[in-house]
Amino acid sequence: MSSSSKVKLVELFYDVISPYSWLAFEVLCRYRNVWNINLKLRPALLGGVYKGAGNKGPDDVPRKFHYMVTDLLRLGSYAGVPLRVPAQPINVLLGKGSLPAMRFVTAVAEDSAGDAKVERVSRELWTRIWSNGQDINQLSSLAEVGQKAGLSARKVEELLEQSQSKAIKDKLWNTTEKALDYGGFGFPLTVCHVEGEPKVFFGSDRFELMAHCLGERWVGPKPVHPSVMDSQSHATMRAAMAS
Amino acid sequence: MSSSSKVKLVELFYDVISPYSWLAFEVLCRYRNVWNINLKLRPALLGGVYKGAGNKGPDDVPRKFHYMVTDLLRLGSYAGVPLRVPAQPINVLLGKGSLPAMRFVTAVAEDSAGDAKVERVSRELWTRIWSNGQDINQLSSLAEVGQKAGLSARKVEELLEQSQSKAIKDKLWNTTEKALDYGGFGFPLTVCHVEGEPKVFFGSDRFELMAHCLGERWVGPKPVHPSVMDSQSHATMRAAMAS
Repeated sequence: MSSSSKVKLVELFYDVISPYSWLAFEVLCRYRNVWNINLKLRPALLGGVYKGAGNKGPDDVPRKFHYMVTDLLRLGSYAGVPLRVPAQPINVLLGKGSLPAMRFVTAVAEDSAGDAKVERVSRELWTRIWSNGQDINQLSSLAEVGQKAGLSARKVEELLEQSQSKAIKDKLWNTTEKALDYGGFGFPLTVCHVEGEPKVFFGSDRFELMAHCLGERWVGPKPVHPSVMDSQSHATMRAAMAS
Repeated sequence: MSSSSKVKLVELFYDVISPYSWLAFEVLCRYRNVWNINLKLRPALLGGVYKGAGNKGPDDVPRKFHYMVTDLLRLGSYAGVPLRVPAQPINVLLGKGSLPAMRFVTAVAEDSAGDAKVERVSRELWTRIWSNGQDINQLSSLAEVGQKAGLSARKVEELLEQSQSKAIKDKLWNTTEKALDYGGFGFPLTVCHVEGEPKVFFGSDRFELMAHCLGERWVGPKPVHPSVMDSQSHATMRAAMAS
């Protein structure tokens, strides 16, 4: 297969409460302009997927949890994602969940035509909880996130109001159910649509396999940053990587 | 860091009941002659690690188990490890455990000076259970494995007898405890000793990170097969990969 073939749809189901989702998010955002893919961000609720799948977080096995912290710091450092261990106990942060935050992201997604705003808002939320150890659910936190992501104060207010609506609550639940329909039991969940078939990948450690499945090439979590290249270079790079 | 520096000890703790351990085993055996490492095989008991860590297998979440089968087949195909879904239910195979098998591997390890025999016996066991869906615990199964791995009928008989001894039972338990001491909660568990510090990696999906930690380079699960190169080529290749 060559990457010069048809653009492939890649869906990323995630929740900002999940630090491994942050890794997958940043890596896929970087590869969006390297691989011949159309990346669609699918904000959903990890708690809902856990409940629907009868799964639990890794924190029910203390050693697994302890390893996870080391693993995340190592992966973050290697991938250039500023994951940090929060000063307050992680269980406290996790215990609060992410319902208001993910409703806000969903409102942003429904309001905007493309994924650019969703991307910025999601990144700001991850930075708050998984880099700065700050709250992500209070109205004031979400307002700050919205403004840091480049939304006007008025727009933020409007989106916060919408995020309480039935339409947004339903949309968030529908996306979560979609993840369950794909067999999801945790996040990140990436669905690559290849020749009419959805190929499902769980976790942030299957990019090499994903590339293989997409007919593309994996060159590590930090491919050449797309902003330094024009679209001609993109095409050249894609061709070189597929050869 | 350059790979021309001191040879680094890498320990692989595994149980042949674990299919992900097979992937890690084959990949590390291939890289043994590509990276500047001294690979030591550490046969241990997954059941013991689960018990000591308060962990459970992935089969307590049905969706996770279902995904695992797809994931294993995809990874096996990509890595060139002949993993297959057994005709009989996996739970039946797993339910029988691997105690006699891992005692036999331990007896082989204690009997031989190097890891060559342990490698061949382990591979034959994985092939039986995870490629052919056959029993790995009956005496007749172990005898067949031993002979396929190149041991004489007499040697196999002797090792099977030794595998029932207190010394071997203790050795298997000690290795399992060692894995727990390193924070283990499942297999494969790889411990890279870098500058006097043990760096612990769980799973068969951290090789790229492991390479980074060892000052080596990851070139996918199928590096050039070492048998086609002489030792001069090894040195050249290592130098090229470290540059």
